[in-house]
Amino acid sequence: MQNPAAVSSLNSSNPARDARLAIRSGEHNTHTGGVAPGHVQANMVILPKEYAQEFQTYCMLNPKPCPLLAVGDAGDPSLPTLGEDIDVRTDLSGYRVFENGKEIEVASDITSYWRDDLVSFPLGCSLSFEEALVQHGVPLYHRQRNGRPATYVTNIDTAAAGRFNGKMVVSMRAMSAADAIRAIQITTRFPNVHGAPVHIGDPEAIGIEDLDYQQFGGTPPQMRPYDVPVFWACGITPQIVVETVKPSFCITHLAGRMLVTDLLNTDLAIL
Amino acid sequence: MQNPAAVSSLNSSNPARDARLAIRSGEHNTHTGGVAPGHVQANMVILPKEYAQEFQTYCMLNPKPCPLLAVGDAGDPSLPTLGEDIDVRTDLSGYRVFENGKEIEVASDITSYWRDDLVSFPLGCSLSFEEALVQHGVPLYHRQRNGRPATYVTNIDTAAAGRFNGKMVVSMRAMSAADAIRAIQITTRFPNVHGAPVHIGDPEAIGIEDLDYQQFGGTPPQMRPYDVPVFWACGITPQIVVETVKPSFCITHLAGRMLVTDLLNTDLAIL
Repeated sequence: MQNPAAVSSLNSSNPARDARLAIRSGEHNTHTGGVAPGHVQANMVILPKEYAQEFQTYCMLNPKPCPLLAVGDAGDPSLPTLGEDIDVRTDLSGYRVFENGKEIEVASDITSYWRDDLVSFPLGCSLSFEEALVQHGVPLYHRQRNGRPATYVTNIDTAAAGRFNGKMVVSMRAMSAADAIRAIQITTRFPNVHGAPVHIGDPEAIGIEDLDYQQFGGTPPQMRPYDVPVFWACGITPQIVVETVKPSFCITHLAGRMLVTDLLNTDLAIL
Repeated sequence: MQNPAAVSSLNSSNPARDARLAIRSGEHNTHTGGVAPGHVQANMVILPKEYAQEFQTYCMLNPKPCPLLAVGDAGDPSLPTLGEDIDVRTDLSGYRVFENGKEIEVASDITSYWRDDLVSFPLGCSLSFEEALVQHGVPLYHRQRNGRPATYVTNIDTAAAGRFNGKMVVSMRAMSAADAIRAIQITTRFPNVHGAPVHIGDPEAIGIEDLDYQQFGGTPPQMRPYDVPVFWACGITPQIVVETVKPSFCITHLAGRMLVTDLLNTDLAIL
């Protein structure tokens, strides 16, 4: 007789929903890398209604770092277009709670913080295009070491919207020039998950003086002879913007702990 | 009353055909840059039937440097899919005639050389994608100086087919990293006119030791701070291959003097 867990997994028709239930129950309490392969995972920013429209405009003006996948209704923790049963208060395994721009708690459930004026902003994430890169045979060094891509603050100004403004954060993946050309082609197909790179080559051109200095603790970058560094806009951008703007209240996901959605990464390809 | 020539030009419905007639009559006897804007211009290689299938396979295996737009029938100087009235013996303003790999004449008409075993191979040319780049606002420095792009022999082996083999020739255009990313996207849409670049960044990675040394006399390259050199496969590749293989007889176009076809560059975009 088969192991009942294995049977349940074999019979499951929605691994994304299974993952959310496991996170909600506390059974899964770590990062979501490798969870529900093929499914879109989302960065999360949750803000009071008084900031919502400004932030939404900020995302609209900066679609590469802030690709909005949906917008919640004020006070409503569901996101029906991303998954019927989603509850953003319980379905991520880690949250950062901010007051006036200062982190006041790292939590695994934000039900006690929920308010009827909070609006959820799920944002596309590079895991989606990384899947496409790997499927097309583009090696990603940080994945070979089970790490995260290196990330950097640049001197590129994002477009301001009301109180929201700041420098763009980028993630960097080093690869051969031929793979860089292929990676530009592949990620161009995914405008809702950061899209094409914002820079290739000399890091100094976008204000990065030292690839070995990372502010957000990604895997130390690796470069082989003739490799080209390729830089994509990064979903960390709205987090540092929030820290700069210091809204009275804000909740974000904790790094690596994303919302697992029912969408397929392939659904996001425009061609 | 209007000038009759101006009237004739205004009434013309096919500027490509007009250009071919002007070249055929000797009225236009120089390069074809800027002639019949929007129309595809073609590199030309003409070989005896005994080499034709091998060369055709060579083009098939190396679509980036040798993008075949059509193939003539043996002994037939017409290319009906590129223009109803085309006569490849008279419709280019300059030809190079080779015997056993050595140039024996530069001619403006090859009617006297025509044989009933000759096969014409018109190949796509970078003028088509340059038009798209300029339309999309990507500056091309050599055009601002009315010149040709810099070209180089690389250490990249083309795929061999029978007697045909050799190193790939590339053209280089320097631009900002942001423009390079955009140029990769734009030229990806044009696989029949060299398509996406074959390399970006460090020239040494493809065996080019000095960007200031050019074997084929293009405009000296210009680089601004933080510019990225972008390298495309070049239609000169089959010419140096022919010089290496030394077929008993061969005719090519003279640099810059292309066949002007009825096709529109926009017809070649795959999306």
